[in-house]
Amino acid sequence: MITGKNNIGNKQSNKGNQIFNTYNATTGEPLSDRFYAATDDEVEEAVSLAKFAFPIYSKTSQKKRAKFLAAIADEIMNLGEVLIKRASLETALPEARLEGERGRTVNQLRMFAKLLEEGNWVKASIDTAMPDRQPIPKPDLRKMFKALGPVVVFGASNFPLAYSTAGGDTASALAAGCPVIVKSHPAHAGTGELVSGAILKAAEKTGMPNGVFSNLNDAGYTVGTALVKTPAIKAVGFTGSQRGGRALMDHAAQREEPIPVYAEMGSINPVLLLEEAIKKRAVEFGKIYAGSVTLGVGQFCTNPGLMIGIEGESLNAFIQSLAEEIKKALPEEMLTDGIAAAYSSGLDKVLSQKNVKVEGVTTTENSKLQSRPLLASTSGNNFINNPNLHEEVFGPFSLVVKCKDKAELKLVVEKLKGQLTATVIAEENEIVEYSEIIESLSNKVGRIIFNGVPTGVEVCPSMHHGGPYPASSDSKFTAVGVDAITRFVRPLSYQNWPENLLPDELKNSNPLGIWRTVNGKLSQDQIL
Amino acid sequence: MITGKNNIGNKQSNKGNQIFNTYNATTGEPLSDRFYAATDDEVEEAVSLAKFAFPIYSKTSQKKRAKFLAAIADEIMNLGEVLIKRASLETALPEARLEGERGRTVNQLRMFAKLLEEGNWVKASIDTAMPDRQPIPKPDLRKMFKALGPVVVFGASNFPLAYSTAGGDTASALAAGCPVIVKSHPAHAGTGELVSGAILKAAEKTGMPNGVFSNLNDAGYTVGTALVKTPAIKAVGFTGSQRGGRALMDHAAQREEPIPVYAEMGSINPVLLLEEAIKKRAVEFGKIYAGSVTLGVGQFCTNPGLMIGIEGESLNAFIQSLAEEIKKALPEEMLTDGIAAAYSSGLDKVLSQKNVKVEGVTTTENSKLQSRPLLASTSGNNFINNPNLHEEVFGPFSLVVKCKDKAELKLVVEKLKGQLTATVIAEENEIVEYSEIIESLSNKVGRIIFNGVPTGVEVCPSMHHGGPYPASSDSKFTAVGVDAITRFVRPLSYQNWPENLLPDELKNSNPLGIWRTVNGKLSQDQIL
Repeated sequence: MITGKNNIGNKQSNKGNQIFNTYNATTGEPLSDRFYAATDDEVEEAVSLAKFAFPIYSKTSQKKRAKFLAAIADEIMNLGEVLIKRASLETALPEARLEGERGRTVNQLRMFAKLLEEGNWVKASIDTAMPDRQPIPKPDLRKMFKALGPVVVFGASNFPLAYSTAGGDTASALAAGCPVIVKSHPAHAGTGELVSGAILKAAEKTGMPNGVFSNLNDAGYTVGTALVKTPAIKAVGFTGSQRGGRALMDHAAQREEPIPVYAEMGSINPVLLLEEAIKKRAVEFGKIYAGSVTLGVGQFCTNPGLMIGIEGESLNAFIQSLAEEIKKALPEEMLTDGIAAAYSSGLDKVLSQKNVKVEGVTTTENSKLQSRPLLASTSGNNFINNPNLHEEVFGPFSLVVKCKDKAELKLVVEKLKGQLTATVIAEENEIVEYSEIIESLSNKVGRIIFNGVPTGVEVCPSMHHGGPYPASSDSKFTAVGVDAITRFVRPLSYQNWPENLLPDELKNSNPLGIWRTVNGKLSQDQIL
Repeated sequence: MITGKNNIGNKQSNKGNQIFNTYNATTGEPLSDRFYAATDDEVEEAVSLAKFAFPIYSKTSQKKRAKFLAAIADEIMNLGEVLIKRASLETALPEARLEGERGRTVNQLRMFAKLLEEGNWVKASIDTAMPDRQPIPKPDLRKMFKALGPVVVFGASNFPLAYSTAGGDTASALAAGCPVIVKSHPAHAGTGELVSGAILKAAEKTGMPNGVFSNLNDAGYTVGTALVKTPAIKAVGFTGSQRGGRALMDHAAQREEPIPVYAEMGSINPVLLLEEAIKKRAVEFGKIYAGSVTLGVGQFCTNPGLMIGIEGESLNAFIQSLAEEIKKALPEEMLTDGIAAAYSSGLDKVLSQKNVKVEGVTTTENSKLQSRPLLASTSGNNFINNPNLHEEVFGPFSLVVKCKDKAELKLVVEKLKGQLTATVIAEENEIVEYSEIIESLSNKVGRIIFNGVPTGVEVCPSMHHGGPYPASSDSKFTAVGVDAITRFVRPLSYQNWPENLLPDELKNSNPLGIWRTVNGKLSQDQIL
């Protein structure tokens, strides 16, 4: 079933002789399928097909693209158990979790299909002409979104379905009208190939142009770098490490024509623990946070890696409750041996810093492929002065910062870099009391949560998943939810364009019945 | 009246000893006022005031910010003749033109004030909770735009009012809730100081925090570069040359925290001349285009610098009509001696290329400070193979490319870089006939015009002024019209946030009566 070949549009191709394997992430054993890293020729072929497909695909009607996306969802479901089993094999994620993630993946595709059927997202705006205006006539101007061009997507290791081959980036770029070339994640290249097959089947069934989708393999950085540097590529979607994301940002910024890189790079998701709230509910919050820290082996970009409170009995009670749970937590296989090794060395680095104390660690021995759930603590002053403690440790780890007072807590917050989320555990009156600090925190994050946990990213229009750098490359855009589509479009204005030659979205008769801004007012009406 | 000092918030400051002058742009004589380039200390002071002002200013109500913007407009009008005369002195632009530009400037400020009073632009989106949802409850999520942080604005030489100190970039950044530091344009530093005074008076009258606005002088690049590299600065607005814009983009991309630079860098604004249309109206279009090419001494970023047609009688008739007018056009003083010199050497460079022919040039002798209106032509093949002919020559110049057939015309269009605009002179049936070429053209531009001229950028919601690189740094954003405000904001989601502590825009009761997306549907209603 798995061929290990690249999908160059609708053609399978294995011209290269660089071959790699994926691994059984639970045992560490290599799997038998051989994957062929794409050659320079194959990269070029995929790009030129995407370039060829772009003017055709970007002009397909929204309704036709909606059918394509819905068909991808169907074809993914049609893969059945084979997909779930392969993904579980390559990532060590449990089948139940992957079934949930598959649900999320197909729901995202259907969400974008619905968005296209409704059609409002193009932000159509019409200003009608005033030929008699003095001193000069006002022209007719009509504006709507237009697809950017071919897009490259780098999948995430930690969401082999929902943020990989047919994940949020691919779904939103295809919805926008952009052909997509996926640089397949080498740790789950088999899963990627299965999903690519589903996308290509859907493209064929719904009559999409060849080149609307390609999938390229590579265990290293050659293919990805070449793609980002190619002039015909107009945007990049990436989910992964800060180092990887920044490297792509730099390549993109140094091109003759710089292009946007939408990199979602994770963060430490600070949690502010205010006194009255944890005084009342220390044990409860400790348990809730143990669940959040260890969820998915701590491999979520919204994992709460930093907790900040003022030292005292309440904070100690919270720490004790959380530490008890962490001690009971079981080591689990991480996504790859590399991630397990990075987690282990990340822990070692934090624990080797001055004045860092282990508050709780799993009492069960872990294998080399497994995580070691751990909770540490340090002082506010120590955190403020040691940037090594500000870095993400990707896995089931969190660091509690004990501040001596509100002033120190303020300084800790001021030291934080950009984050995907922050959470405030507080009584309502404390939000008012700490309003200045919370305002400072909210200026560093994309989402702020009250008395909850940051893990669990709801897919809905009001979700913003992205934050100031280094949480993401561009805080204006979300990787989750329908607004993700705006990453892959730009506005185009038509001036005095003949009515019958305008896109349907901009015609007087409003044949799609969409919401438009007409002379500055929102309306679904025709223009008479 | 002019002090030559920097405005560091509400304080005037001249700590430095680097002094420069502005010039009478008509005579080339230096003016008597001495301007003090800001020192490193002064830059730092302005930045730290802006940083201090940000949390206060960004939290002011939209209505209060609207009053501030309207007050700026009033104070600019209160400057009266003094402003117009100073601007005319420093730019050689006629007073009537500058009165028009002042009108545009205050209208822009009032347009953003109105936008804030209406309040819809924040894109409020609310998804209400579903506590009973299975398998997990749905949280309450509410999202709206939030200001980015302190912004640096670089004014344009060619719009000393509308795209300079209190121009579109400043107006939109202030509207968004961002403090602004203007790096004053050294060619019209006196005009800049007058306008800065108006802004600061308005800030005081409407109770804005000190640091909401500063104005720094420098005849070189030191101050601007330092500002863009400063961590507290979160975005940059720029209007000017490609070289200048790219330098700022590179500085911004290389920061530890990269920031967006919104650079509007001009372009050659290709005009497609299709046969039937120019056959019918060669003389008329020739005259219209002579007006567009020479408007404002050709110093508009939408100046039509390239015209493309298929060789033959019709094109020749058009060229002849246009050339006749160009011969009659008078040399005029350009904005600065530097710009006049650059125009002259730009012309020399184009005319020294192989197979470039002068079709018409002003018959009046020009001084060193004046433009020399000129029309040249070349063959399609020559254009395709000579990138030197693809560059902007800023001034009253245009190059006609004579293609031998439709296929060559297609290749010429494919060679074009990103542009602010393209114009198609055509009969309606020709738009259909040339649809593939026009589609290719529209993929390279921010605005496409039918049977008109690209000059004259209407300020309205449906205007998009920005195009693929190098026309602008980010094709997603416009420098003109209300949507320009979105350059300086990012979304922030609130999860399960207490109702009474939410911003008014997100409260159930919708106290501002704004349009919001509630559970995916647009509505002005309260949430019950």
